[in-house]
Amino acid sequence: MSQHIKLFIPGPIEVSEKTLRAFSSPMLGHRSKDFQALYASVEPGLQKLFYTKQPVFFSTSSAWGVMEGALRNVVSKKVLNCMNGAFSDKWFDVATRCGKQADSLKVEWGKPILPEQLDAKLKTGEFDAVTIIHNETSTGAMSPIYELAEVLRKYPDVISIVDTVSSFSALPIEFDKLGIDVMLTGTQKALALPPGTALFTVSEKAFAKAATIKDRGYYFDFIEFRKNGESSMTPSTPSIGHFYALKSKLEDIEAEGIDNRYARHQANAKLTREWAKSRGFELFAQDGYQSVSLTCVKNALNIDVPKLNSDLKSKYSCMIDGGYGKIKGATFRISHMGDESTENIKKLLGWIDDCLKAQGK
Amino acid sequence: MSQHIKLFIPGPIEVSEKTLRAFSSPMLGHRSKDFQALYASVEPGLQKLFYTKQPVFFSTSSAWGVMEGALRNVVSKKVLNCMNGAFSDKWFDVATRCGKQADSLKVEWGKPILPEQLDAKLKTGEFDAVTIIHNETSTGAMSPIYELAEVLRKYPDVISIVDTVSSFSALPIEFDKLGIDVMLTGTQKALALPPGTALFTVSEKAFAKAATIKDRGYYFDFIEFRKNGESSMTPSTPSIGHFYALKSKLEDIEAEGIDNRYARHQANAKLTREWAKSRGFELFAQDGYQSVSLTCVKNALNIDVPKLNSDLKSKYSCMIDGGYGKIKGATFRISHMGDESTENIKKLLGWIDDCLKAQGK
Repeated sequence: MSQHIKLFIPGPIEVSEKTLRAFSSPMLGHRSKDFQALYASVEPGLQKLFYTKQPVFFSTSSAWGVMEGALRNVVSKKVLNCMNGAFSDKWFDVATRCGKQADSLKVEWGKPILPEQLDAKLKTGEFDAVTIIHNETSTGAMSPIYELAEVLRKYPDVISIVDTVSSFSALPIEFDKLGIDVMLTGTQKALALPPGTALFTVSEKAFAKAATIKDRGYYFDFIEFRKNGESSMTPSTPSIGHFYALKSKLEDIEAEGIDNRYARHQANAKLTREWAKSRGFELFAQDGYQSVSLTCVKNALNIDVPKLNSDLKSKYSCMIDGGYGKIKGATFRISHMGDESTENIKKLLGWIDDCLKAQGK
Repeated sequence: MSQHIKLFIPGPIEVSEKTLRAFSSPMLGHRSKDFQALYASVEPGLQKLFYTKQPVFFSTSSAWGVMEGALRNVVSKKVLNCMNGAFSDKWFDVATRCGKQADSLKVEWGKPILPEQLDAKLKTGEFDAVTIIHNETSTGAMSPIYELAEVLRKYPDVISIVDTVSSFSALPIEFDKLGIDVMLTGTQKALALPPGTALFTVSEKAFAKAATIKDRGYYFDFIEFRKNGESSMTPSTPSIGHFYALKSKLEDIEAEGIDNRYARHQANAKLTREWAKSRGFELFAQDGYQSVSLTCVKNALNIDVPKLNSDLKSKYSCMIDGGYGKIKGATFRISHMGDESTENIKKLLGWIDDCLKAQGK
């Protein structure tokens, strides 16, 4: 087997040996009492991280499955897709592919979605649902979810679907308090688990709306998830390894302390941003709206990003990300979420410095 | 950690330590060359098992995801759901939940779907798609797929969707030769991998039909799978652990020899059926149509199935299945698929004998 390259890309991120050991626990039947106990054991920790009293569900899929499923569950009139990067742009495309009426609130990549922009769209009364990506992984821009939620609360007939794929557990996002209707995340981002499962929670309002939609399907049906969840089970055979890994990770989070975890993510982000600016780079995301889990660096020095990455791999057995979609090469991204200590991020930045010297930068 | 209970239930089944080690390999980026190489490395082995030149796809979901997705991809008029057990019955329900027109070919649980029954339904001309579960895991009945395929070939405008969840890799099912349009399986049955991924392949005819369907969605969109598969990638972030586990398993299958593997499954099935009959039980599935991967035993001796299982657990650290849905307790199921040697199955049957003695049977 070739040498492992440690991942500082914004997902999948590095997974600890402890988590991988848990992930590869022997199987058990998913309709057994032992499985129900496993399911029930992770539920309180997840509710704490989601800041909710609602049940939290496990979808054996990537986040995209739930992002599509949410549309099928709650959109009957027209959905507003807030677009400010590759993933939020794609959500609009997915809505139309599901046969849903959709319109967009589109801002430049790198910018956040702002409350007044959202308000202007929603006050048209055209929409019964809205999608927002809290932390655009492609651009490193984090939209002000607390302020956006304030606007959303003015429109109780609009179901809000918030993707926290790359921000969940890196900072508090208080589902119940904010009044969000659907909130989802993946496992391979700040939770530092292997990819393959998505987690989500649903408000009573969204459950009620789903009950009115006749063709919402089965695999991502919120009401099936709730019904099965009541007996600590999933509608379909779940990825059992992910439950074990999640249980292990929730223990880690409890041991670290959630506030320490948030503070560590803030410190890692601050360090990385300061490093980038001190070296003459710029940040791609607008000031004041930069992600706490990853930093998207504008390649203002015109470095050779593929060479940087290949040097990081050969000299330091690690890699960062070379930029996503239309800003590939014009940006690069450093993930500082999950298990990474500030010490680790310092080391990584030192390695990048070293590799950049070889480019005369 | 409590002692592991070895699984002789029909999925998830026991996963070998070798497979679990592979499953927990360190992560890599799913848009990297290393991932593309991993994807490409399993493709030929899967095409061999599917007996196809078409690409084989990996869905990060249980089989139900693809079973629902297939309906969304190819049904525009009306689907015929062949129903002869819990899972095939549910497929009809799922079709209606997707807003599809659906009708049923319904036979008693334990019976197979027969060619003349299928022919009578299809000749009405009402249908543009049909679903068949080759091996009904709930009843242990295996329908004669070669004869059914002969009927299907008479109706080239009907897209056939065949679920081989619990028969795939336990006996040959020749996709290209049979002219099936969509064939899917899970990973936690005869492949003996952890649950969490489904595998499927699609005929050119089914791709062409999918291209005409406007609301087929994204997550299970066959055309997206093909487009991404051309660069050895998946549309969404996949469960990377499953790729590693699959690679390991395909090596095992190659080492054993596929024909030896099939013969072992036949021998395990024969042994289990003969054991059941010799003890005074009956087989739930109709003679001549019994599954090669699991045996569903009719509880003709009126044994206490929960007690049998609890004795197997405490005395032999293993378990069988206590029957599914409406035939729970009236039947029990023994899985003899995956990695199990005939020697192992002999041992298991001896343990069951021992536990039944304690019940005076």
